[in-house]
Amino acid sequence: MKLATKLLMLPLLAVSVVSLSVSAQQAPKPEQLIKWRQSAFQVVAWNNSRIKTNLDGQYNKEDVVKAANTIAAIANGGLGSLFAAGTETGKGWHETNVKPALFAAGSKEGDYSAAFAKEATELAHLAATADQARVKEQFGKLGRTCKACHDDYKAKD
Amino acid sequence: MKLATKLLMLPLLAVSVVSLSVSAQQAPKPEQLIKWRQSAFQVVAWNNSRIKTNLDGQYNKEDVVKAANTIAAIANGGLGSLFAAGTETGKGWHETNVKPALFAAGSKEGDYSAAFAKEATELAHLAATADQARVKEQFGKLGRTCKACHDDYKAKD
Repeated sequence: MKLATKLLMLPLLAVSVVSLSVSAQQAPKPEQLIKWRQSAFQVVAWNNSRIKTNLDGQYNKEDVVKAANTIAAIANGGLGSLFAAGTETGKGWHETNVKPALFAAGSKEGDYSAAFAKEATELAHLAATADQARVKEQFGKLGRTCKACHDDYKAKD
Repeated sequence: MKLATKLLMLPLLAVSVVSLSVSAQQAPKPEQLIKWRQSAFQVVAWNNSRIKTNLDGQYNKEDVVKAANTIAAIANGGLGSLFAAGTETGKGWHETNVKPALFAAGSKEGDYSAAFAKEATELAHLAATADQARVKEQFGKLGRTCKACHDDYKAKD
């Protein structure tokens, strides 16, 4: 290779190295992703608990709307990125309890995730517009999407 | 008190006891509330990190919208209930690092919380409607509401 050609390539190489360096810096570590997904599901659990308390006792529509909106935002918020390759095992707040099958070929995780998002969006809509009975029915539907995925892909605590 | 009056009061008493029992059963323990609030702020951190990655690198509007919506839902979702009396100390995922001043008379927690919700709502609005420069500016505003509260009420890690 001629020297002139080598010199011409130097800036390209420099750009590549910088890009790689930025990507490496920005990509969160697997343990961080696991901690974030464990946190996201705890926030879902918190808001499930709030809705259940409202349905079982004094119904406060404003509280149910807030809780349903939070679940819907998380369900539609890109949870899949927290299950990136490299997070099959590892410790966030605790050792992950995701089963290997979630990461395997033929995993139905995408379908479950889409069902979760769909029913959570509908729950947020009904919380704001419908009565307690309709919210209760939809809350049951949402819970079944959680259970379906847990049955297949979440190891027992 | 006449026997008839006493008998009339029995159902009222029974209702009260049942209500108390349900409330006691439903009220989450302080450690649970602390775990939930630590999780909620981790989800905010996750989504802050996503927005920062987008602003520093390749800007993906859809990803920023999802992240901003999630932060806005949490900021407007009733975080205050996770700082209930009894949660001044204790362990969720880890020992709480909230300073006692947050729970004391004269606490500005309510003001900080309202500012966080306001700027997060605006960020979600701009993420969907405005360009990257406006989102970046608003993201800075949101970050300053985080810092203001942390400076006063979050102990160093």
